[in-house]
Amino acid sequence: MIKSIEWKGDHLRIIDQTKIPGKLTYLELFTVEEVYEAIQRLEVRGAPAIGVAAAYGLYLGMRGRSSKNPNDFLTQTASVADHLSGARPTAINLHWALNSILNRIRELNLNPDELLGEVLHLAREIHQDDIDRCEQIGRFGASLIKSGDTILTHCNTGALATAGIGTALGAVYTAFQQSKEIQVLVDETRPLLQGARLTMWELEQAGIPATLITDNMAAFAMQKGKVDLVLVGADRIAANGDVANKIGTFHLAIAAHYHDIPFYVAAPLSSFDLSLTEGSLIPIEERSEKEVGVIWDQLNITTPNARCWNPAFDITPSELITGIITEKGIIYPPYKESFENLQLNIKIYSKQEELNL
Amino acid sequence: MIKSIEWKGDHLRIIDQTKIPGKLTYLELFTVEEVYEAIQRLEVRGAPAIGVAAAYGLYLGMRGRSSKNPNDFLTQTASVADHLSGARPTAINLHWALNSILNRIRELNLNPDELLGEVLHLAREIHQDDIDRCEQIGRFGASLIKSGDTILTHCNTGALATAGIGTALGAVYTAFQQSKEIQVLVDETRPLLQGARLTMWELEQAGIPATLITDNMAAFAMQKGKVDLVLVGADRIAANGDVANKIGTFHLAIAAHYHDIPFYVAAPLSSFDLSLTEGSLIPIEERSEKEVGVIWDQLNITTPNARCWNPAFDITPSELITGIITEKGIIYPPYKESFENLQLNIKIYSKQEELNL
Repeated sequence: MIKSIEWKGDHLRIIDQTKIPGKLTYLELFTVEEVYEAIQRLEVRGAPAIGVAAAYGLYLGMRGRSSKNPNDFLTQTASVADHLSGARPTAINLHWALNSILNRIRELNLNPDELLGEVLHLAREIHQDDIDRCEQIGRFGASLIKSGDTILTHCNTGALATAGIGTALGAVYTAFQQSKEIQVLVDETRPLLQGARLTMWELEQAGIPATLITDNMAAFAMQKGKVDLVLVGADRIAANGDVANKIGTFHLAIAAHYHDIPFYVAAPLSSFDLSLTEGSLIPIEERSEKEVGVIWDQLNITTPNARCWNPAFDITPSELITGIITEKGIIYPPYKESFENLQLNIKIYSKQEELNL
Repeated sequence: MIKSIEWKGDHLRIIDQTKIPGKLTYLELFTVEEVYEAIQRLEVRGAPAIGVAAAYGLYLGMRGRSSKNPNDFLTQTASVADHLSGARPTAINLHWALNSILNRIRELNLNPDELLGEVLHLAREIHQDDIDRCEQIGRFGASLIKSGDTILTHCNTGALATAGIGTALGAVYTAFQQSKEIQVLVDETRPLLQGARLTMWELEQAGIPATLITDNMAAFAMQKGKVDLVLVGADRIAANGDVANKIGTFHLAIAAHYHDIPFYVAAPLSSFDLSLTEGSLIPIEERSEKEVGVIWDQLNITTPNARCWNPAFDITPSELITGIITEKGIIYPPYKESFENLQLNIKIYSKQEELNL
């Protein structure tokens, strides 16, 4: 399996996802600023993956700084975390990973050098946790997939989007490993074409049959009986189960609902933001107009002066979501109660206590 | 107003729509084969426009042929019409225009030379009729548009798609001329980007405020309250009101229905195919996979061996359509009855008698 993120002892190595599928190139990141820019430019992307990258970024940002005392170290760490948090506003995993580390080191009674070591240790723990969570999400997700199914997916939620096998695509990988005969219909995912570029590339490497469609073909594919199940990821989930995910997810959910096709979201618990009662409160990143009007800074598809709107995410109301696949199991509406039950489990299962964002 | 099609005395001049918005170039078509290829390559496109082009194509195909007698002329004309009909399968206007001419000349008692003159005369009549119908559709359509409205549209249904001001976009032009303050949200319309390339270019020329979005943003725009009305065209309408139109129309209709936003189709009566009881019987053109995976034969957006699906049209069930704007007025469900009432009118208004396809 592809490793989109690797810790190389003293720096972070990531696959430059803006170059896929044309070239498989790696970027070696030694500073927090390099990590910040890699996140902002989408060289590393996918909510879970940017959480892991940011955790290492926090370490890289503190390494080499001198701190007079533990308090000074904590203040500086909070400031670096605050900066990194601004790289992308919608995915909660970024904030979660950083807050998770901050909360943990605040409880420790250690000197600055030891704290720095602890930041790296926690980053590696978040990294390993993400790998494990993907496996678990994959197993739960695969339980929804029958042999013969065609799964429609959007954007990229695979190995490139996480440190592990992925979330929604992780379920596909797991079902395929279980020898289920499946195929995948892949939304190209304009404007940045993560489906066409990344998901098609991943599935080809894995030998899983895949067919690319433009985003506007999905509803017609459903009408023609070509879709058994829709699986997507999430960048942030509000307490009521509303989901922020890559732009286009919402229209897929409406179309699936119209055709009575199951629509599942796959995401680790770190994607939940229980501080927000509903999806309309989730900040939606608006990116440059040029990403719409000029494909990859290369191909002008409209008039030079055209105005464009470019929200990077949308909000799918929970009423359109059949269920949410997490590393602890699949939860169903009403999501508020399901979340509360999960929270109880979280308390038992330790680790997730930092979910108090 | 732009003229996408002009008859230049002895040949057809069309705007090469594959070059818009980069360059405004014209193609001069002297033979039926040139017309056939221009239709197939989408150099001329839009259901009404290809109907007009095909009508002239029939004349160009018969010019210079020798016919022994009227029957021989009629047989040859039917054969040329049959060939032209195959250029694109979905839009009915192409068949309608050709059948309309065939049916008319069959009733005439003339020699081959006179019949040839009649073919040209009828092509020019179809051309002028299209201009007039666009005006009427524009007026009826504009009655649905209030000052302050934002109209969402898909593909291109303007001057480039017709011989006149357009169908759905004709309503926008007319409302703008009536000094209504409007703006247009334009779906880019993958894979061939007719919205980004053609509609944005037309609206810029007309000075109408327009914003380009990717197709998968439309539902989110509706959720954010940015859309008052959806207006699209049609390539063929079945007797029950199901509409074949550019791929992506169906998902727009589902999204509009979910948000309770009026969704209107604008099309001339020549788009009706009363021989088909429902939309599932309309043949859907599937075009080359490359149009999805390689944008404009220029930009590879996926892996070299990727499989793609490329239906050029989809079917919107009549239950999702608020009303259909025709040159005789706006009709509402149940469409079957509304059509029958229109047919009665058609008998009175002459000209449309050829609608017995």
